[in-house]
Amino acid sequence: RINGDRLWDSLMEMAKIGPGVAGGNNRQTLTDEDAEGRALFQKWCEEARCSMGLDQMGNMFAWREGTDPEALPVYVGSHLDTQPTGGKYDGVLGVLGGLEIIRTLNDLGIKTKHPIVATNWTNEEGTRYAPAMLSSGVFAGMHTQDWAYDREDAEGKKFGDELRRIGWCGEEEVGARKMHAFFELHIEQGPILEAEGKDIGVVTHGQGLSWTQVTVTGKDAHTGSTPMPMRKNAGLAMARILEKVDEIAWSHAPHAVGAVGHIDVYPNSRNVIPGKAVFTVDFRSPDLDVITDMENRLRVAAEDIVDEMGLQIQFERVGGFDPVKFDGDCVAAVRGAAERLGYSHTDIISGAGHDACWINRVAPTAMVMCPCVDGLSHNEAEEISKDWAAAGADVLFHAVIETAEI
Amino acid sequence: RINGDRLWDSLMEMAKIGPGVAGGNNRQTLTDEDAEGRALFQKWCEEARCSMGLDQMGNMFAWREGTDPEALPVYVGSHLDTQPTGGKYDGVLGVLGGLEIIRTLNDLGIKTKHPIVATNWTNEEGTRYAPAMLSSGVFAGMHTQDWAYDREDAEGKKFGDELRRIGWCGEEEVGARKMHAFFELHIEQGPILEAEGKDIGVVTHGQGLSWTQVTVTGKDAHTGSTPMPMRKNAGLAMARILEKVDEIAWSHAPHAVGAVGHIDVYPNSRNVIPGKAVFTVDFRSPDLDVITDMENRLRVAAEDIVDEMGLQIQFERVGGFDPVKFDGDCVAAVRGAAERLGYSHTDIISGAGHDACWINRVAPTAMVMCPCVDGLSHNEAEEISKDWAAAGADVLFHAVIETAEI
Ligand SMILES: NC(=O)NCCC(=O)O
Ligand SMILES: NC(=O)NCCC(=O)O
Repeated sequence: RINGDRLWDSLMEMAKIGPGVAGGNNRQTLTDEDAEGRALFQKWCEEARCSMGLDQMGNMFAWREGTDPEALPVYVGSHLDTQPTGGKYDGVLGVLGGLEIIRTLNDLGIKTKHPIVATNWTNEEGTRYAPAMLSSGVFAGMHTQDWAYDREDAEGKKFGDELRRIGWCGEEEVGARKMHAFFELHIEQGPILEAEGKDIGVVTHGQGLSWTQVTVTGKDAHTGSTPMPMRKNAGLAMARILEKVDEIAWSHAPHAVGAVGHIDVYPNSRNVIPGKAVFTVDFRSPDLDVITDMENRLRVAAEDIVDEMGLQIQFERVGGFDPVKFDGDCVAAVRGAAERLGYSHTDIISGAGHDACWINRVAPTAMVMCPCVDGLSHNEAEEISKDWAAAGADVLFHAVIETAEI
Repeated sequence: RINGDRLWDSLMEMAKIGPGVAGGNNRQTLTDEDAEGRALFQKWCEEARCSMGLDQMGNMFAWREGTDPEALPVYVGSHLDTQPTGGKYDGVLGVLGGLEIIRTLNDLGIKTKHPIVATNWTNEEGTRYAPAMLSSGVFAGMHTQDWAYDREDAEGKKFGDELRRIGWCGEEEVGARKMHAFFELHIEQGPILEAEGKDIGVVTHGQGLSWTQVTVTGKDAHTGSTPMPMRKNAGLAMARILEKVDEIAWSHAPHAVGAVGHIDVYPNSRNVIPGKAVFTVDFRSPDLDVITDMENRLRVAAEDIVDEMGLQIQFERVGGFDPVKFDGDCVAAVRGAAERLGYSHTDIISGAGHDACWINRVAPTAMVMCPCVDGLSHNEAEEISKDWAAAGADVLFHAVIETAEI
């Protein structure tokens, strides 16, 4: 078994970096706080006698030697970046869970045939730089590195420049590493495990995601002196499209979800009718046909709305991935570990996107989930228990050592 | 007649300070650009042999002596601050029109019995600091100065601190000045004068305004892993309320208007269901009962929406004023001047709020309006012709000298 107290202490120590305003964290990617979190992780990895690799996307790889020089490593990890008002566990549990496995192997003096590599993927959250899972995506060949470097945050700062600024841009070519397998431990971020009273989710699939950024263009005008019939109110058109997003997602519930989390109106002044609204529609489903249907219906509905109002609209796909089926052997390793350790478990589909969704394309991959209180995540109040964290890391440990071979 | 070329050149010169991104201006209140615009106005006033007064709200008063030491001054002016994406004329025409009157009187060597004071009121636009017409409001005793100093911009910077920072906080007590009359020249910001082919709007009334800032509180949660029935989407509730605002305003059209120009959702991340939405409803009508009806219906409708969705709501009145009836004698002076000068004119109700609306409470007040192209304002593309500006300033000149007595 892993050391649950040590894992918890490390989680609490990491949470001190980039504290939020309500008990959680604001350690967004490529900020000074991100750099500080990375330095702490590196220090811990070196104390655990690992050598740190760093690639050109800032992905970190803490390497514990195996006994067979020919054997490819088993990778294990997640991400240290958080939402602007994020929790202490989303991502962090998976990275520090990977470190805890290495610490436990050290404690027990166990050598594995395959090396074990604890990994921190850059910019999983996708808030500051869309899309989410950007760097595991480059690793898996889904995006080019040049394209990723050109992503801009809300202030127009580029990903590549910010990565260099914080000092975490490595030399290593991205995606050059070959993996024997990849395992990711993550909190569920949804309510199913807690509701069913299960310790462990054996993640068999991940639902697919589509992010469409919509720009509605009307005309800035005075809210007082512009007669109602002359208005080209981009904010009002946006409101009508938001209602459609909800309606379309509900029409497929419970096999789909939909929402708009990102909204900006311009010039955002109380006495100016918005001439422009920019917002991102997030549609998800485990079924690719459902996603495609939602995307198509959104475009038709939104075009009808703006046509009727005499406005213009543009759509840009700013992120997304198809539904994922994880590797049968890796999933079986997770299920077998939960079974052997006596943890209650259930097969589950991940509602969120994860680095594992991209890595699954280039290596046999699976995920372990543990419950979180009220299914709440992307909220500073995100909470888990020490026992849940320890159970998740235990299952990860056993799945990893089975795959890495003692 | 005033010198239309000189007035136009001054307008173009002022527009160089705080240029916008599309041909207009971004010279928001209490920015460095505001300070620069003020310095230019002061220089011009001093060149016109006026002495400059400055009060504790940063209101500027350029004084041209009268012949009777007992006679109260006739004030004339408007504001130099602009919207973030504002035009070159909104406010500026009224301030520089006041200066042009003084320059013309100097050219002609005319002395008036009453002094004439060209005025620049601080923060008319209300974008950076709500409410609009903040400093003429303090002057008229509608707000206390302490309250005004405590207003915060989006970055949490206080009005009082920023006023001192830019170096335009005077010693003079606000509102201590007594006025014989106040005249404001302004572009219409609406389509009526141009549509009717009139040179001059004789402003008899101003419609009233109500700004209600609405805060809807839901719960930040993950857009992917939170089932539809568990969501508390503050952005979606906002969208529904926006639709109601439009519906309520239309129900009173053409005697009312309504829109939402200010919208912020939190944490504004693509994969977080907004836990909070803050936005400001702008309702206007020349009829106070209509405004009250719209406010009441908004509250009921918005409360129903959030109740049904299980969210919370708060309302805060962040600005507003009752419909205004301008002074009969001053209005007659404007109408008489337009008539004598041979300009086509019509009586008009101001759709926008103006400093004159507050000053009307403490002094006999009227306004002169000139057309603007397509009725467009609060837009960088705001445009007027040199002839329109000159006609407006001519009428202002004659109304002012009639009132100030040669
Ligand atoms: N796990 C997680 O929150 N990932 C962010 C990407 C997503 O929106 O699903
Ligand atoms: N004239 C003008 O645009 N004033 C700003 C206050 C308002 O919103 O009416």
